[in-house]
Amino acid sequence: MTQLDRLKTRLGEICDLRAAAAILGWDQQTYMPPGGGAARSEQLATLQRLSHETFISPEVGELLELAAAETADLAYDSDEASLMRVTRRDYQKARKVPPSLVAEIARTTSQGIEVWTNSKAQSDFALFRPVLKRIFQLEQDLARCLEFDEHIYDALLDQYEPGMKTNVLKALFADLRQHLVPLVQSVSQSRRHVDDSALHQLYDPQKQWDFGVEVLKRFGYDLKRGRQDKSAHPFTTSFSVNDVRITTRIDEGFLPSALFSTLHECGHALYEQGVSHSLERTPLGGGASLGIHESQSRLWENLIGRSRGFWQFFFPRLQSIFPQALSKISFEGFYRAINLVQPSLIRVEADEVTYNLHVLLRFELEVEILDNRLNVDDLPEAWNSKMKTYLGMIPPDDTQGVLQDVHWSNGLIGYFPTYTLGNLISTQLFEAATRECPAILQQLEQGEFSELLNWLRRHVHQHGRKFLPTELAERATGKPLQADAYLKYLTEKVADIYGT
Amino acid sequence: MTQLDRLKTRLGEICDLRAAAAILGWDQQTYMPPGGGAARSEQLATLQRLSHETFISPEVGELLELAAAETADLAYDSDEASLMRVTRRDYQKARKVPPSLVAEIARTTSQGIEVWTNSKAQSDFALFRPVLKRIFQLEQDLARCLEFDEHIYDALLDQYEPGMKTNVLKALFADLRQHLVPLVQSVSQSRRHVDDSALHQLYDPQKQWDFGVEVLKRFGYDLKRGRQDKSAHPFTTSFSVNDVRITTRIDEGFLPSALFSTLHECGHALYEQGVSHSLERTPLGGGASLGIHESQSRLWENLIGRSRGFWQFFFPRLQSIFPQALSKISFEGFYRAINLVQPSLIRVEADEVTYNLHVLLRFELEVEILDNRLNVDDLPEAWNSKMKTYLGMIPPDDTQGVLQDVHWSNGLIGYFPTYTLGNLISTQLFEAATRECPAILQQLEQGEFSELLNWLRRHVHQHGRKFLPTELAERATGKPLQADAYLKYLTEKVADIYGT
Repeated sequence: MTQLDRLKTRLGEICDLRAAAAILGWDQQTYMPPGGGAARSEQLATLQRLSHETFISPEVGELLELAAAETADLAYDSDEASLMRVTRRDYQKARKVPPSLVAEIARTTSQGIEVWTNSKAQSDFALFRPVLKRIFQLEQDLARCLEFDEHIYDALLDQYEPGMKTNVLKALFADLRQHLVPLVQSVSQSRRHVDDSALHQLYDPQKQWDFGVEVLKRFGYDLKRGRQDKSAHPFTTSFSVNDVRITTRIDEGFLPSALFSTLHECGHALYEQGVSHSLERTPLGGGASLGIHESQSRLWENLIGRSRGFWQFFFPRLQSIFPQALSKISFEGFYRAINLVQPSLIRVEADEVTYNLHVLLRFELEVEILDNRLNVDDLPEAWNSKMKTYLGMIPPDDTQGVLQDVHWSNGLIGYFPTYTLGNLISTQLFEAATRECPAILQQLEQGEFSELLNWLRRHVHQHGRKFLPTELAERATGKPLQADAYLKYLTEKVADIYGT
Repeated sequence: MTQLDRLKTRLGEICDLRAAAAILGWDQQTYMPPGGGAARSEQLATLQRLSHETFISPEVGELLELAAAETADLAYDSDEASLMRVTRRDYQKARKVPPSLVAEIARTTSQGIEVWTNSKAQSDFALFRPVLKRIFQLEQDLARCLEFDEHIYDALLDQYEPGMKTNVLKALFADLRQHLVPLVQSVSQSRRHVDDSALHQLYDPQKQWDFGVEVLKRFGYDLKRGRQDKSAHPFTTSFSVNDVRITTRIDEGFLPSALFSTLHECGHALYEQGVSHSLERTPLGGGASLGIHESQSRLWENLIGRSRGFWQFFFPRLQSIFPQALSKISFEGFYRAINLVQPSLIRVEADEVTYNLHVLLRFELEVEILDNRLNVDDLPEAWNSKMKTYLGMIPPDDTQGVLQDVHWSNGLIGYFPTYTLGNLISTQLFEAATRECPAILQQLEQGEFSELLNWLRRHVHQHGRKFLPTELAERATGKPLQADAYLKYLTEKVADIYGT
């Protein structure tokens, strides 16, 4: 047995513990009876503590050093060299944070979610303020432990988007802001009215479910290696490359809710199902980053699921399933309805065009607070002021404003930008894929997606966590991450829908 | 923090790991997609190894010694004294078995189940023979590691029924054989024919499910702290006292299949839901033994679920749910049909009277093999010969004979007798309960079960694993375990059904 084998054995056990925690989490959100919650928290805490302790043990450090000699001559992109590179990086980061800080963050955010829930229900930011202050302080402490070269925000961002830098984000967002704000205004000023009332009718839940499953299968989601269940908040979770599950929720009175959440989660799941089997039970099995993951979900949800080609095939099918609701609407009317652009207060309900302005706002606020340029006390005013600037709206209360997202209460600072990165990467990948395989667009109109899936498998999925996200995007598309493809896509879409 | 607290913390973590493994096992048998199997085996193996290693660590041994002084003066039946007593016993047993033997048994039985499946499908005992020999050898090795005073079988039995002895079993089974063999013969010779054809009609699966749930709720199974799902083989599993789940399977063409499996599993689940909260996350949380567990499932399945009183309330209800199938059958006809006695080849399909003869046969064969009085080569002949003696039938092939049960292939030697112990204990408990609370029998006829459940909670459930099964049975019933109550119950039942 080589030292690398020994290392892999230990890492395999850690993967098993993490997978077990993921299974417990899936159960908690799908089938667990109400009484099960308290014991489940203890069980999850034990699994997480054990996997963390095992990973940061001196034994893993030693094995990393011993195995280094054995793997020194391997090619950069070989599984083994990548395993060593990524694991060393993970290990060094994990060792930097003292267990006492991990515990303090866990305690505070656990309380934070509870306080936030109350505070949001009462639309009273003052209730949330003290714990939110503490959370931002702890995240600053965390960032200092993790270390950074340029910007304190880099350290937090790096947890979700390895290698990404605040300055790169700033440039990308500046580009987006410059183009998106006028684009949104042009929609407001357009004389064409898009009517989505047809989507707000009664749609039988079982038929919605069945149609979703039909699309899942056509996309290539393997139901022998996965399944769909219902949960309050849709999510994707993976217990191995052969057991990748998604959930959805169904709104009987609004067709897009289940449909697009199913397509979105399917994108995540196709990624996880496509990771190379050779990376199973190693730290490389899984997505490269939140941004790359979101690029997959948004690609299937938006670039495919809201495209003309997709609906050329599926709209007649959907009409035949819901004749009463859809017989009176034209293809063009339906296509426009699912692509309605309208500034709104709530991020998770935002359309493709305004969505990234919601993210921009959060990114700017997070950076300002970490820089100590903005005080948490002044957050609601800062929020509302940016909403006015970017979207022309002011929330009537904090529930629809600064209190809307769970993320901060859970200590997820540096997380929001990955949503926008996902959007940018999705279009850059899709552009590269269709350039290389124009057949993708023809297949699309026939309800076939194998060419696209194969391209993504080859260029993205199979590599798992072998490469940094920026590296992966550049290898796949031949150029560094830019906003160009995304802005071009949105501008053309808005022109198509609104005749601008 | 006391040493006892330290010990409890460590034991709590072990409980969490075991609960996590149970959740993974539940998922495997209910919702896991087919592809998930391979990774699941690895995940389960890691959890089981970790919980075992943590438990047998010298640290736990030290804490046991240190905590002993703190708990020396506590009452025998206090939670703390019981925790120390039971944990010390578990620890000493677990330490006796070398990890290499544990691993060898795991490997061999994992192969054993696979070989048995093939062998059973082909009805060819010769295929199974080599691995079965090896399994019996390994179990002999295991018994020697575990140590025993009187009989090698004691050591294996003790794993499932702590404190039970082979000689006690031999006496109980001798008593049973002496009475049951003539009882079965008297049924064969009875002139009354019991017709159960009404049970073999089409019964809508959803209505079967709903009726089962109705009874579950009336029994007192708390669905806020549990749930029922479907699986190939019905089972009960517990992740905490507040999350105890059961499964069932539905046969559209045979009413008793789902119904009695639901009542059976409900009995197990009521036990687990009734364990005192003070024993949560300790080794005392759970049932005292397989025998005591089976006493609960058989009590609700048979003593309640096949009783006149129960059906006086539920038969009209069942008739109204299945008017087509049941309108033509009388109460008496239905009651007899679900209590049909008929010698048969397959244990799991056996009625209450013949069931224990199937167990007797297996117990005798296991003891003879462990004593080296019977060779595995000669097992099929020995099986058939005993079937002839006890049930008057000879299996036409090994699939319906010696190959029918999975247990031996899985290394479960010493397990079968707990089924019969469960039957005996169930009647002894029920006799004591109805003697103390005659209201139980009146409630029964009104579809009410709270008096019975409360009695069981008080005398059995709440104690978890605090007492040895024989101790628990004696504390609850005031006398040692005997076959009397069971034989009286069966004799009266047979007289009632067959007019013998």
